[in-house]
Amino acid sequence: MILCDIGNTTIDWEIHGEYSKQSVENFAPVFYTEMIYYICVNAKLLTYISTLKNWIDITQYIEWKKYYPTMGIDRIMVCEAISNGVIVDAGSAVTVDVMREGHYEGGYIALGLRSAQEAYAKLSPALAWPFNFEVDLTIMAKNTPDAITIGYLAPLIDKIKSLGNPIIVTGGDSKVFSSFLGDAIVDNHLVFKGMKKLIEKGQLC
Amino acid sequence: MILCDIGNTTIDWEIHGEYSKQSVENFAPVFYTEMIYYICVNAKLLTYISTLKNWIDITQYIEWKKYYPTMGIDRIMVCEAISNGVIVDAGSAVTVDVMREGHYEGGYIALGLRSAQEAYAKLSPALAWPFNFEVDLTIMAKNTPDAITIGYLAPLIDKIKSLGNPIIVTGGDSKVFSSFLGDAIVDNHLVFKGMKKLIEKGQLC
Repeated sequence: MILCDIGNTTIDWEIHGEYSKQSVENFAPVFYTEMIYYICVNAKLLTYISTLKNWIDITQYIEWKKYYPTMGIDRIMVCEAISNGVIVDAGSAVTVDVMREGHYEGGYIALGLRSAQEAYAKLSPALAWPFNFEVDLTIMAKNTPDAITIGYLAPLIDKIKSLGNPIIVTGGDSKVFSSFLGDAIVDNHLVFKGMKKLIEKGQLC
Repeated sequence: MILCDIGNTTIDWEIHGEYSKQSVENFAPVFYTEMIYYICVNAKLLTYISTLKNWIDITQYIEWKKYYPTMGIDRIMVCEAISNGVIVDAGSAVTVDVMREGHYEGGYIALGLRSAQEAYAKLSPALAWPFNFEVDLTIMAKNTPDAITIGYLAPLIDKIKSLGNPIIVTGGDSKVFSSFLGDAIVDNHLVFKGMKKLIEKGQLC
């Protein structure tokens, strides 16, 4: 099975169980002849790909009433992957979603690590420090790097922990977030897992 | 007593108990003949004002070992104002500091409302929504404006509440923050209160 997650700058592939990544610039969908299941947030590419018969847009299988109309497709995929748990997708934004017995309970969107760091630096050169990931989030800070790290991470980590277990972490910053989340499970292929579950569901219907 | 809080863009005054504000551009310190106690984060103005004999820089009275060297002067002033409590200064950044029996326990720095909102909008046009301050922070969101409002505010509010009582809120966004903080006390003149306490201490020494 070939799965393709098309973003605005990057294309992620799962090709017969192997994972790879490429930039949008080098992407030539017309050269693929096999059947490819995809999700796509790139509006320009979507218009083109939807004309190709071997490319199957799996958003057609989404049961939209479970979610909400403006919810990101990647977020829906990670929710489809997990029937019970708190799902943290730590990327450019940090999305936190709660699934209980296959039911979507809702979620929220926090700023991602890089986005928060840039916002601190924009506020003042005095706050333009890298985060200190060695910091103890349970204490109060007495220096600037710790004060911004705790200010960004401690509330977010505490809130995630308060939502219950299991916690499943995915996305580019999954390592950092899981290091503060105790027994959290890291799964960097959660989008593809959700896509596969959705395809199975779609084929059963 | 005349107190002056000199920022990078705005000057805040307390003149014999009356509060006022002016822009840095219209500020002419040499025309004042009375004694003025001030704090100043504006490096350019500081160089000039420090040559004027009737302008008294009260940072000379700060007991620095209680705090830390890169801590903002405004933050130290709000801490000087409160001997026991959690102090939230909700401005361009949101600083949270804990004082217990006159001892500084530490604190942290989160992004301010406007800064967070700008960072969401920069991440994606899909996240460029105004915050919804009517939202219930205890639930999970099922629409985008609520998802970003809860994502920014709920972790921060929960963390502040976890630090104990009393909570004292100051700064330009004190209304919004206090509306989510139950019995919090709002005091928009906390910097001046701290300045006065510090002056009294300095004169006793």
